[in-house]
Amino acid sequence: MADELCIFCKIVKRQVPSNVVFENDNVLAFLDIRPVNEGHTLIIPKAHYRDIFDIPGELLGEVYRVTKEVAVAVKNTVKADGFSIFQQNGRAANQDIFHLHIHVIPRFSGQKNVPYHDLKLVSNDKLEKTALEIRRQFSK
Amino acid sequence: MADELCIFCKIVKRQVPSNVVFENDNVLAFLDIRPVNEGHTLIIPKAHYRDIFDIPGELLGEVYRVTKEVAVAVKNTVKADGFSIFQQNGRAANQDIFHLHIHVIPRFSGQKNVPYHDLKLVSNDKLEKTALEIRRQFSK
Repeated sequence: MADELCIFCKIVKRQVPSNVVFENDNVLAFLDIRPVNEGHTLIIPKAHYRDIFDIPGELLGEVYRVTKEVAVAVKNTVKADGFSIFQQNGRAANQDIFHLHIHVIPRFSGQKNVPYHDLKLVSNDKLEKTALEIRRQFSK
Repeated sequence: MADELCIFCKIVKRQVPSNVVFENDNVLAFLDIRPVNEGHTLIIPKAHYRDIFDIPGELLGEVYRVTKEVAVAVKNTVKADGFSIFQQNGRAANQDIFHLHIHVIPRFSGQKNVPYHDLKLVSNDKLEKTALEIRRQFSK
């Protein structure tokens, strides 16, 4: 089983379904199924790189250029007041999936503490609706 | 006073001292004076951009390419087990200085909770020593 793909590689290859909001040749963005807030999106390189140390700098730059575009689209969709952008590397930093991924998390005024633990799965119907609205921002 | 520079613009112009670990034409990296852990570094565009929505995508890509190089140098200096990379946008996300900045935070196994509040100022002697060690990584 050494060659088994990681969950994000399976998402890239459409072996596992996801709610895609943006895609180009090198980068994929899709909704987190356990969102901190509505519109919580993950941005990944399509090729498998473990973390910031593993990925070439040029590709990392492209992934973050896409991250900006996704943040704009999500902002226009969910009308967030702020955004947390973060990326964890290594178990010591609570990285959970070892395929580099950037979290784009909408934040709202008055919501002091973000509940990063015990996040609940959101129904696929709701995720599909949100993803559709975000994708529409890209076609404007 | 409408034209007064922000604290990070003053750091760029050397009107305020800082412990620089890397610099190129467009990007500056320096130690956070209230580090979560030793080696906690901030990476900023030299030009003033408020947040991810304000900065051009190409420059954001360059800032993150530098962020990777800085993370490598800090890792080799402080021998961290992991790294948190994050960037806050807007008061709702607890952005404190309104000049875009990326946090590179070394993480260590067994250190479960990172104390993001009540962070203490570190003596400039200690910061200078750490900055010197990180800069040496770039000249290797």
